[in-house]
Amino acid sequence: MSQAPLRGGRGRALRPVGTGGTRRIRGAMAAWGDRLAGVRGVLLDISGVLYDSGEGGGVPIAGSVEAVARLKRSRLKVRFCTNESQKSRGELVALLQRLGFDISQEEVTAPAPATCQVLKERGLRPHLLVHDGVRSEFDQIDQSNPNCVVLADAGESFSYQNMNKAFQTLMELENPVLISLGKGRYYKETSGLMLDVGAYMKALEYACGIEAEVVGKPSPKFFKSALQAMGVEAHQAIMIGDDIMGDVGGAQRCGMRALQVRTGKFRPSDEYHPEVKADGYVDNLAEAVDLLLQHADK
Amino acid sequence: MSQAPLRGGRGRALRPVGTGGTRRIRGAMAAWGDRLAGVRGVLLDISGVLYDSGEGGGVPIAGSVEAVARLKRSRLKVRFCTNESQKSRGELVALLQRLGFDISQEEVTAPAPATCQVLKERGLRPHLLVHDGVRSEFDQIDQSNPNCVVLADAGESFSYQNMNKAFQTLMELENPVLISLGKGRYYKETSGLMLDVGAYMKALEYACGIEAEVVGKPSPKFFKSALQAMGVEAHQAIMIGDDIMGDVGGAQRCGMRALQVRTGKFRPSDEYHPEVKADGYVDNLAEAVDLLLQHADK
Repeated sequence: MSQAPLRGGRGRALRPVGTGGTRRIRGAMAAWGDRLAGVRGVLLDISGVLYDSGEGGGVPIAGSVEAVARLKRSRLKVRFCTNESQKSRGELVALLQRLGFDISQEEVTAPAPATCQVLKERGLRPHLLVHDGVRSEFDQIDQSNPNCVVLADAGESFSYQNMNKAFQTLMELENPVLISLGKGRYYKETSGLMLDVGAYMKALEYACGIEAEVVGKPSPKFFKSALQAMGVEAHQAIMIGDDIMGDVGGAQRCGMRALQVRTGKFRPSDEYHPEVKADGYVDNLAEAVDLLLQHADK
Repeated sequence: MSQAPLRGGRGRALRPVGTGGTRRIRGAMAAWGDRLAGVRGVLLDISGVLYDSGEGGGVPIAGSVEAVARLKRSRLKVRFCTNESQKSRGELVALLQRLGFDISQEEVTAPAPATCQVLKERGLRPHLLVHDGVRSEFDQIDQSNPNCVVLADAGESFSYQNMNKAFQTLMELENPVLISLGKGRYYKETSGLMLDVGAYMKALEYACGIEAEVVGKPSPKFFKSALQAMGVEAHQAIMIGDDIMGDVGGAQRCGMRALQVRTGKFRPSDEYHPEVKADGYVDNLAEAVDLLLQHADK
């Protein structure tokens, strides 16, 4: 366990679990016990919690490989719940395995497979504005004569030409349907903060005068499918993520609890967000797992 | 004058001026007289009203070269009020002159010169995300160590890399200032509808959690500077544009009247816009000028 002081909500300093101390500190520890009581399942965000993406694939966040392994050895159920939409689920898992994580495709809830299900159910034929890395997920989907646009984190493929093509496709439809894989504002790569799909979703929404349908966090349907796959109820589950809106706010609106890690895209101002307050703020996944193993499922 | 039936607001068919007819039609013609009474100055949008931009510069809209000439021979004052931000004012005027229009730089209110004034007044040093064609307008502005971002219709320069650089610049500022040259949703080129600066403004607003300052239509300050340059009061002025929100709605909020032309980016649904109703809908600038010369300043 980390020897660094733990920090509770609003920057209150806590001693590491088990060091005892004054009544104030005991009280603060008791609060963690209340906050995590009855947790049976843990949803883990991937980017910014397990690793930071970037050149050469990315780097694991310190302590996260071990934290995932400890969590999976515990009685807690674990599922990975990501908005990653640049890579196919297979590529993402292969990358994480190379970085040392114990993870398999079956444990991951990701927006591209969920989108394919929506497209099939509604007979939608997408024009794809996506990264080449995720295109294979849509191989089985009819893409002729498009009657909707599917937007993912396209990265460098968010060219003016490609955005315009998506825009024109929507404007030619009588009932324009825009499906966005997540609505994240930005994420962190090793080189810095990067614009996420949500920014481009807003651009198309404004230009076309429409509202996108989001598949991915914070859509309740998406969280619920992850809970169902894990086999726990919302009130028994906790989300751990670096996104105060998409992870924390979204999970809480579904009846889950949520911790925000101070890694990835976390910014100090998140702890004073005007609308969303996490059930706890922790320095990183390792600290979250320390707390969960101490207090959850009691 | 065009022999096609004129159309009033909400799709009501009108006969051409002077053909007489039933009382219903006379009534409708009288309404134009009411609607245009007392107009002394005319603000003309450029793109979509005078010409459609595109490959090789663009093409004049049928009848517009003559309409501008007729308007300038009349007693009405004329000023061009554009959100064009891909080209410098000099380049735009040179292009329009090549297309046959009677226009000079001094008659044009454009957002880039107005932005330079704002930057100077407030000591702002911009990071520019603009088209190369307009960059020269900012030659006299200190661009070192930026403390704001200026966004214009950058066209192909709206790459992911350039958008990310603007985003990162804003995120590094304690008080991020984003200035957008207009907030248009899209415009029409000869090849089709194209995303305008407003879409990219929305993307950055969402990603950074900020609100942009708009220099250009529909900013009241911008309209007022055009009125001032023309020397007429708002209630004596009429705007003619193809943008139901930026031209028509913006001008009306400033106390002006406004006509929408059915050229450029006009779409039939504009005539049933839930929020904005033009003082009249006309097929093109030629028809607007017919009506103005018949009814204005009486």
